Amino acid sequence: MLILMHPQATLRQTGEILTLAETLNLRPYLSRAQGRRVIALTIEDEPLTARLKGMSGVEEVRPLGSGIKLTSRQFRSSNSVVVVGGDHRTRRVSIGSQSMVVIAGPCAVEDRGSLLAAAHAVRDAGADMLRGGAFKPRTSPYQFQGLGVKGLELLAEARQATGLPFVTEVLSVDDLPAVAEYADMLQVGARNMQNFALLRAVGESGRPVLLKRGMMSTVDEMLMSAEYILATGNESVVLCERGIRTFENSTRNTLDIAAVPVVQRRSHLPIIVDPSHAAGQRDLVEPLALAAVAVGAHGLLIEAHPDPDSALTDAAQTVSTALIADMVRHIRTVHRSLSPLEADPHTDCNGFVAPNIGSRSLDFGCNGKDSDR
Amino acid sequence: MLILMHPQATLRQTGEILTLAETLNLRPYLSRAQGRRVIALTIEDEPLTARLKGMSGVEEVRPLGSGIKLTSRQFRSSNSVVVVGGDHRTRRVSIGSQSMVVIAGPCAVEDRGSLLAAAHAVRDAGADMLRGGAFKPRTSPYQFQGLGVKGLELLAEARQATGLPFVTEVLSVDDLPAVAEYADMLQVGARNMQNFALLRAVGESGRPVLLKRGMMSTVDEMLMSAEYILATGNESVVLCERGIRTFENSTRNTLDIAAVPVVQRRSHLPIIVDPSHAAGQRDLVEPLALAAVAVGAHGLLIEAHPDPDSALTDAAQTVSTALIADMVRHIRTVHRSLSPLEADPHTDCNGFVAPNIGSRSLDFGCNGKDSDR
Amino acid sequence: MLILMHPQATLRQTGEILTLAETLNLRPYLSRAQGRRVIALTIEDEPLTARLKGMSGVEEVRPLGSGIKLTSRQFRSSNSVVVVGGDHRTRRVSIGSQSMVVIAGPCAVEDRGSLLAAAHAVRDAGADMLRGGAFKPRTSPYQFQGLGVKGLELLAEARQATGLPFVTEVLSVDDLPAVAEYADMLQVGARNMQNFALLRAVGESGRPVLLKRGMMSTVDEMLMSAEYILATGNESVVLCERGIRTFENSTRNTLDIAAVPVVQRRSHLPIIVDPSHAAGQRDLVEPLALAAVAVGAHGLLIEAHPDPDSALTDAAQTVSTALIADMVRHIRTVHRSLSPLEADPHTDCNGFVAPNIGSRSLDFGCNGKDSDR
Amino acid sequence: MLILMHPQATLRQTGEILTLAETLNLRPYLSRAQGRRVIALTIEDEPLTARLKGMSGVEEVRPLGSGIKLTSRQFRSSNSVVVVGGDHRTRRVSIGSQSMVVIAGPCAVEDRGSLLAAAHAVRDAGADMLRGGAFKPRTSPYQFQGLGVKGLELLAEARQATGLPFVTEVLSVDDLPAVAEYADMLQVGARNMQNFALLRAVGESGRPVLLKRGMMSTVDEMLMSAEYILATGNESVVLCERGIRTFENSTRNTLDIAAVPVVQRRSHLPIIVDPSHAAGQRDLVEPLALAAVAVGAHGLLIEAHPDPDSALTDAAQTVSTALIADMVRHIRTVHRSLSPLEADPHTDCNGFVAPNIGSRSLDFGCNGKDSDR
Repeated sequence: MLILMHPQATLRQTGEILTLAETLNLRPYLSRAQGRRVIALTIEDEPLTARLKGMSGVEEVRPLGSGIKLTSRQFRSSNSVVVVGGDHRTRRVSIGSQSMVVIAGPCAVEDRGSLLAAAHAVRDAGADMLRGGAFKPRTSPYQFQGLGVKGLELLAEARQATGLPFVTEVLSVDDLPAVAEYADMLQVGARNMQNFALLRAVGESGRPVLLKRGMMSTVDEMLMSAEYILATGNESVVLCERGIRTFENSTRNTLDIAAVPVVQRRSHLPIIVDPSHAAGQRDLVEPLALAAVAVGAHGLLIEAHPDPDSALTDAAQTVSTALIADMVRHIRTVHRSLSPLEADPHTDCNGFVAPNIGSRSLDFGCNGKDSDR
Repeated sequence: MLILMHPQATLRQTGEILTLAETLNLRPYLSRAQGRRVIALTIEDEPLTARLKGMSGVEEVRPLGSGIKLTSRQFRSSNSVVVVGGDHRTRRVSIGSQSMVVIAGPCAVEDRGSLLAAAHAVRDAGADMLRGGAFKPRTSPYQFQGLGVKGLELLAEARQATGLPFVTEVLSVDDLPAVAEYADMLQVGARNMQNFALLRAVGESGRPVLLKRGMMSTVDEMLMSAEYILATGNESVVLCERGIRTFENSTRNTLDIAAVPVVQRRSHLPIIVDPSHAAGQRDLVEPLALAAVAVGAHGLLIEAHPDPDSALTDAAQTVSTALIADMVRHIRTVHRSLSPLEADPHTDCNGFVAPNIGSRSLDFGCNGKDSDR
Repeated sequence: MLILMHPQATLRQTGEILTLAETLNLRPYLSRAQGRRVIALTIEDEPLTARLKGMSGVEEVRPLGSGIKLTSRQFRSSNSVVVVGGDHRTRRVSIGSQSMVVIAGPCAVEDRGSLLAAAHAVRDAGADMLRGGAFKPRTSPYQFQGLGVKGLELLAEARQATGLPFVTEVLSVDDLPAVAEYADMLQVGARNMQNFALLRAVGESGRPVLLKRGMMSTVDEMLMSAEYILATGNESVVLCERGIRTFENSTRNTLDIAAVPVVQRRSHLPIIVDPSHAAGQRDLVEPLALAAVAVGAHGLLIEAHPDPDSALTDAAQTVSTALIADMVRHIRTVHRSLSPLEADPHTDCNGFVAPNIGSRSLDFGCNGKDSDR
Repeated sequence: MLILMHPQATLRQTGEILTLAETLNLRPYLSRAQGRRVIALTIEDEPLTARLKGMSGVEEVRPLGSGIKLTSRQFRSSNSVVVVGGDHRTRRVSIGSQSMVVIAGPCAVEDRGSLLAAAHAVRDAGADMLRGGAFKPRTSPYQFQGLGVKGLELLAEARQATGLPFVTEVLSVDDLPAVAEYADMLQVGARNMQNFALLRAVGESGRPVLLKRGMMSTVDEMLMSAEYILATGNESVVLCERGIRTFENSTRNTLDIAAVPVVQRRSHLPIIVDPSHAAGQRDLVEPLALAAVAVGAHGLLIEAHPDPDSALTDAAQTVSTALIADMVRHIRTVHRSLSPLEADPHTDCNGFVAPNIGSRSLDFGCNGKDSDR
């Protein structure tokens, strides 16, 4: 349920609602919409609704429906911005703001030399973050499964060398502690989008999460999977459209470009696009990347390798790092052409800072990162 | 088969090949690629291949494979440009050139007033052509089936009033004479993409054709349907991606944005995008239109109506003509940002002009419209 | 709208409703459900509804909704039986009754010898009807397009020789007179399922129609296409499930076996299954045919050829006529095992015979073929 | 690679190959095909191939290709039979033999009373095994997630009361020890079909596994997921077709009935069908179940509940246990009609018993359950 406070409700009145919720062992989510404070509880309960309606400062109590709650635009009207990196080692990257975030790197980490070469090339090309797989999900048990922890160490070395934060996939709850120790952002892959145990675990890790759409999943199912993570109290979730499975076989998957604006109407979470997995072939990556920029995506995830033909995985769709600089330049050109078009009505943030009553969810308003925007 | 002449082959040598082909009752298609003349015949035949290899001026004879022939990039390396209108009544519109062609108008012609209002609004907004349905394909026999010939008359009046050429759908071979008498361009709809009798008939009409992709047809099947039209000798075919049927139900169809560059790699024909039918909802039309521009489409087909909520068909996805001006401005802004990016390697035309030996296909080289480019 | 008469309404009262409808230039459809006469009109109109409610003998007037009308189970509760053949030349085949109708033959008619061999083989194997294509829809304009009228003549000769009625595809309105002159049943192919001009034309021909589901069409769209035919007054329509297009590529199409009971719940029309096009490979035809029998289909359409490997079209999925006898035997064995399971609640026919007031729709009750059941 | 021994090869010669493989730290899989012993190794290696070819008793060494190995029909030509239960507590159920195995029960375990009622009803109806979910995968984090270990205890009590072994889903590696302690068979659900960590873990548990096809996974991907389990040395895998995701929305999923014979041609593993999840509605469960029997499935998985309308999950598709007896009777009737049709060419087992050299894979020939067949 969504508890809308009066515009003139006092902090004390809001605090009483929060205290009641915590007494009942419910986690209250505090946000702001249309000039008033909003408290969300992820249950629907008639007696509680009646009781809340009687409390002072409460204007209205609305059901949140059977669908998404914390992930919904109804719950938060402004865009969420997810911050990755920004500690002493790496630059700070904000996904969901007006900037276009480019994440690039090899499909899998293969060896020290090629990873460092790729990392330097993508940084010099103007990319914001590095990607690379240490644990690889493979259809066949006999295929290369990634370097594991050794791959994580190499990614950390590449970060050290370039200052780029990195995202890497976590395949199972068992691998999570190792991956979370190294990575700046945890990727949940398409095949694990409905691995609910993993969703809960990455949520509880508190790290930023990149959640890729399952190739067999609807937009609404992706949002529901994000809800699993948000329900743990971890709001740093970035969604990723990467193509769905259809009858068309000219491309590896069919990029559902409309998913970007559809998600942006239903949810406040940022969404980026992976043109590489959608295309499945190198020469389609740039046109799909430009389409993603034009449709309004907050970022791009691109597979790049110093010598793509020798890549152990996804060679066909991996672009040469030699071409990445031109591609990033084109991406930024199209992105700049869009900015004056129209102010996005959803990017304002009311900068609500909640009273300190000990709940980490109280500074949920703008992800506690107001100064960013 | 594809007959590649020597770069130094004479016109007389080429003419002898053409004459032989016509003697055998075959229609020769003359084109130019990599600095030499190329003659295509739409059959594969071993004895003929051997005979041709022995003729003077012939460098190589290659099979065209089991797929598309006249439609293929292999047959013609430069982009085709399809010209619509340009007579005393209308402006001349070139689809397939560097410009971005915007075609807009109501789904169905409903009455004189709303059609004229729409036509003026889309012209004032900067659109290049008018669209509107007189014969409507409807899932149910009890739904509004269009105004028929009366609708064609109203479209002609709107053309007269605005100078915009118009495209309208032809549903059956029986309706073709009436539609071809009025329309500047004939649309073959998604449901008729494999109505082979209709494809042949619109081909033989000699009018420019807008061929929409079937909602569950592959790119290759669309190209094969275009081949039916080209095989009649009518080369003025524009393809249209309008969304395919998938499991995702957030949108009416899933816009297969990658189909645009895929088609451009396989074929020399222009391809435009219909974001309205793909989206199925009004507020997604603009982001999808911008994505289509960025991916490299040659044009857009947009449903617009002065009062969309009262439209008899497709109301949900029809934008208000009041908003069209802004949309066209945004489209042109993104299009301009792309032009300096990179010269399209496929748009050169070698301006081949064949000797006049009486075959209409001799000026096929650049659609006989070299001066356009 | 659906006009339900009182159980005790007289023939005169019913006749007055019919007369009124015809006066208004509406075609009344007379049926019977739950022990009373039912008259359907394919319009919804409030003043008329009010007037009808006031007429004697009328118990209730119900809207038929925005979906199918004449095709709906709501309109007729008993199963329709479509009769093919039965004149002096051929045996009489009833599709939709308790028997399992097997239709078999080559994909395309290729030559006299192989067609006659196939026809004799399928008759001797116990099949009920012959199939064979004279006009072939082909993805490419360069593929074999069928023998045309010559093929129809050969089919007629095969009918003469075996006594089996035959079904063959009609591709366009122009070909219809020729096809209707020869064929016992007209097939509308998957690619033409929404060729509305063709649907109307085959409807008006008055011949029995086999309507195949488009590979991109929902069950509801197939029923709507059937409605186009029924709305012309031609009730002899048999539906055919032949596989839909999905991401799975182990088979040519994915047989939507559930479409059979879904159609039977929504419509009174018979439905048969084409396992050959669904499978796309020979050795899957029999298991899919047996599944179709078990799920409750009224018949099967099977591609068979004396020498399948030499067939010009669909060779991979065509079974040898040498194996057809075994297959038909297995089909009949499974079909017999089902018959005692449960009486189909929908196959009763109340044998309503309407008064003769000159309307052809008056004997619509059981297709005028009561004695058959 | 596949090492085919001479028909006259001695046990000693075979033993030398096995010993060599183990020396190289490879797990050898021993089988029998076409009257000779076959040893499979899941690597391809040229020097080793050369070495093996030179060893006495070896007739041929073939590559196993890039696809499935242990799961392939090429690796084992006879059908695998998976045995569930059979200890002092439960009846012994053989899946993959000539009998038709019916597994029925509620979607989720809800409470002791309804579970025990369901268990008795399905046993009395003639079902062979009980199903019921203790850990439930739910799209939303706010839906009922199952009773967990309490549900397992209730399932064990129902087993005790009825003698029926039970299958239940395991959602994550963390839950596996608890589930494996109670369950007779572990189900890997559709959403986890490519959760490779879970596949490996259930494989290593050594328990029989029911692997459900992902709703948008191909048959080949399902077989590859089975390969993950077999590669751990656990050969007791049963596959389950449960419908795939398509554009058709009349049913919850589209039952890919052809997947059954396709799997049977490619693999020796048993395959059953879940008509409940495919249909999504109660009245379609029986026709789909009968189709599955006729197409050749080895068993059925059916959701049944004493009071389906009150079921907490999947109510729409759950049949009443009151109707299960009739359904099982119809299933057995159709199954019996099929048995005399034709002997399945794949069900012979040559009863190979390998010498005891300490490798568990030596008795792999017929799953060590020769007497069963």
